[in-house]
Amino acid sequence: MTSAPSPATDLSGPDTPFAVVDVDRTRRNIARLRARADRLGVPLRPHVKTAKSLDVAALLHDGVPGPVTVSTLAEAEAFAAAGHSDITYAVGIAPHKVPRVLALARRGVTLRVLLDSAEQARSVAAAAREAGTAVPAQIEIDCDGHRGGLVPDAPELTVIGGILHDAGCLDGVLAHAGESYSASTEEERRLAARGERDSVVAAAGRLRAAGLPVRTVSVGSTPTAHAADDLTGVTELRAGNYVFFDLVMAGLGVCAVDDLALSVVVTVIGHRPEYGWVLTDGGWMAMSRDRGTAAQAQDQGYGLVADLSGALVPGLVMTAASQEHGTLTMRDGGPPPALPVGTRLRVLPNHACATAAQHRGYHVVDGSRNTAGAPAVEAFWPRIDGW
Amino acid sequence: MTSAPSPATDLSGPDTPFAVVDVDRTRRNIARLRARADRLGVPLRPHVKTAKSLDVAALLHDGVPGPVTVSTLAEAEAFAAAGHSDITYAVGIAPHKVPRVLALARRGVTLRVLLDSAEQARSVAAAAREAGTAVPAQIEIDCDGHRGGLVPDAPELTVIGGILHDAGCLDGVLAHAGESYSASTEEERRLAARGERDSVVAAAGRLRAAGLPVRTVSVGSTPTAHAADDLTGVTELRAGNYVFFDLVMAGLGVCAVDDLALSVVVTVIGHRPEYGWVLTDGGWMAMSRDRGTAAQAQDQGYGLVADLSGALVPGLVMTAASQEHGTLTMRDGGPPPALPVGTRLRVLPNHACATAAQHRGYHVVDGSRNTAGAPAVEAFWPRIDGW
Repeated sequence: MTSAPSPATDLSGPDTPFAVVDVDRTRRNIARLRARADRLGVPLRPHVKTAKSLDVAALLHDGVPGPVTVSTLAEAEAFAAAGHSDITYAVGIAPHKVPRVLALARRGVTLRVLLDSAEQARSVAAAAREAGTAVPAQIEIDCDGHRGGLVPDAPELTVIGGILHDAGCLDGVLAHAGESYSASTEEERRLAARGERDSVVAAAGRLRAAGLPVRTVSVGSTPTAHAADDLTGVTELRAGNYVFFDLVMAGLGVCAVDDLALSVVVTVIGHRPEYGWVLTDGGWMAMSRDRGTAAQAQDQGYGLVADLSGALVPGLVMTAASQEHGTLTMRDGGPPPALPVGTRLRVLPNHACATAAQHRGYHVVDGSRNTAGAPAVEAFWPRIDGW
Repeated sequence: MTSAPSPATDLSGPDTPFAVVDVDRTRRNIARLRARADRLGVPLRPHVKTAKSLDVAALLHDGVPGPVTVSTLAEAEAFAAAGHSDITYAVGIAPHKVPRVLALARRGVTLRVLLDSAEQARSVAAAAREAGTAVPAQIEIDCDGHRGGLVPDAPELTVIGGILHDAGCLDGVLAHAGESYSASTEEERRLAARGERDSVVAAAGRLRAAGLPVRTVSVGSTPTAHAADDLTGVTELRAGNYVFFDLVMAGLGVCAVDDLALSVVVTVIGHRPEYGWVLTDGGWMAMSRDRGTAAQAQDQGYGLVADLSGALVPGLVMTAASQEHGTLTMRDGGPPPALPVGTRLRVLPNHACATAAQHRGYHVVDGSRNTAGAPAVEAFWPRIDGW
C-alpha cells in the first residue's frame, strides 16, 4: 500500500498481495520462548528486526516497553519514540552513526552499540568524551566463524575493553551463533548454544581478569535460544525470528509449520494446465527473493500454500517467482486442485524477516470469522522502514 | 529512510546503506534503446517497474508524460496522478482489481489490462458493461513457456477475443520473452526476439482473420529489445530493466558493467583478516536476496564493489549477506585492499528491480564532485511503493 490502508473487515477485502499476521500464533510463539527463558533463568531481549512493529513488541513484554535488540538506527529511533529506553543496536557501529546514537542518549535512551576493533572503540570513546555522554558498548565475540567479532582469546579483546572502560563505555560482550541456522538437529543446536555461551563467558572472564567490569553477557539466535540447556554466566538471551517463525525454522525442526504466523495473501490470476501451473499475483516483490529452504532437506520453493483460512493445500508449493507473478505447482508433479481465477490463497514464507520487509505492515487476524466465514481482520500494524 | 531524507550534498553525507542512481548512465541507457527502437521503427512503451520513479520516467519521454507499462495498480495510479494517460498494466488481471481500473478510466486514463482466460474476459466485459466504460484489454500470448499466456494457436484465443470485442474491450495482444533472461548469446536473444514477435503476430493474425480488430501488438523484454532485428507487425516495444541495467544483464552481454546506473552505498564496519573478509553495513535488506548471477558463467555473489566515485575495486565481490551485514572477499581468495572502518563503497547489484525495491528512493549523482572530490548529490528521487 502506498499509505496506511483503510480498515479491512476480513481477508477477502484488501487488494492482493498483502502480508498477514496470525496474532494467536504470534502470542503462542512468544509465550513458548518466554517460558524457556524463564526456565533457564535468563531475561529475554527480543530482536525486533523481524516484525519491526511496535504492536508486535507490545506482545513481547505484556504491553509495556521492555528491552529490545534492533538491527537499524531507524528501529532504535522508532522504539525510543514509543517509550523504549533499553535498546541494543546489534550491528557493528560505523563511526558516522555515532551522532544518531548520542542524540538518543541525550533523550535518556540507553542505546548499546556493538564493535570488534580498536579503531571503532577509539572512535566511540572519543565521541562519548566530546559529548560528555557515555555510549555503552559491547564487544562482539565470534563463536563460530560466521560473521564479525573477536575470537574469545584474541589479544585485542582486553585492549578494546580498556579503551572503552577508560571512557566509561564498556558494557559487555555479545555473540550470535549464525551457524545455528544450518544446524538441522536439536543436538547440533544445543552444541551451538553451548558454543555461543562458552565464547562470551570466556571473553567476559578475560575482561574481568584484566580488571575490566562486564555488565552484559549476551547470546542468542532463534535456533540456539530454543535449544540452550544451560546459560550459566549469561545475562540476557536474544532472538528475533521466533515471533513469526518460517519454513527455514520449520525445516530445521525449531518449530512446526503450524507455528508460522506470517503469510502473504495472493490471488489466482491464471492457469497453465499443460504445465500443472497455477499463477498468482504474488511474486518475489511480495515474498522476497529468499530461497532459504533450497539448501535444506526439503526445498519449499518460495513457500507453501494455504487457503484463506490458513489450512495448507496439501502438496501445493510456490515453485517460481517473477516480480509480480507467482507459480504454484504440486510437489509430486500432478495436477493442482481446482483454484479458479480470483481464489485467494496464503503463502507461508521461507524467511519471515525477508518477506515481512517487502510490506509496509500487517493485516492482523485471530481465530474469528466474518459471517461469510472469511478470517476477520482485527487491525493493521505498520512496520518501521529504512535505516 | 523513514521519510524523504534531507538534501545531501554528496555521497559522503547520507547514512548508509542507501541507493544511488548515476543519471548520466541512466540517460545513456535510455538513449541507446531509444535509438534502437527508432531504427526498428517501433515506438517504445517503457516498463517502469524497475525504477518506479516519476523522475526516471521524465527521462524516458523528454520530460513529458508518455506511454508506460506498469507492474502494479499503485504504479498506474501514481503515474496517472502525474499526468500519464496511456498505461498498460502487464500482469494478468484479477477480477477484484477491475474497480481500481475503472476508477482510472473515469479519470480519462487509458489503462489496458492483460488476461489469458475466458473467465477473466467475461469478468472484464461484464464490469465494463455495468460501468458503461470500456476497459481496453490485451490477450497475453505465450512465446516460450515461461509464465502465463495462450500459445498463438490456442482455440480459446478467438473465443476470448470475441468476448472482449463484443464489450468494446479488445485492444490487442502482448508477449514477453521471459526465457530471454537466460539467453547468453546475442544470437539466442535475436532468436528469442523473433519468437516473441512471431507469436504475437500470429495471434493477431488469427484474431483479425476471425473478424476481430487488433490495435496493439506488443512485445518486449530488456534482452530481446536489445537484440531484435525485425519487428514487422509489432506496434510497440516494452523493456524496463535497461534504465539501470545490472550484473545479470552484464553477464548475458546485454550491457557492460560500466553501464550499471544503480548501486548501493555501504560503509565498512569491520574486518576478519583471517578469512579475507571486509564487513559492511549493507546486507540483503539493502541489496535484496536476489542471486541472479548464481546461474551465470560468472557468479557475482551479491554484487561487485566499487569505490565511492564508482570505480570498481578490482576483484572485490560481495559474497555473503545477512540482514544488515555484507561480507566482501577477493574473488581469488587473496587479501583485500586496505579499506578502513568508515570507508564508503558502492555495491553494483545482480538485479536492479529487486535491489531498488529495498529502498524508498534514490540519491542521484552525475559527473560532478564537491570540493573534497566526493560525487555530488543532485537530487533525491522517491520510489512508488506497494500495490
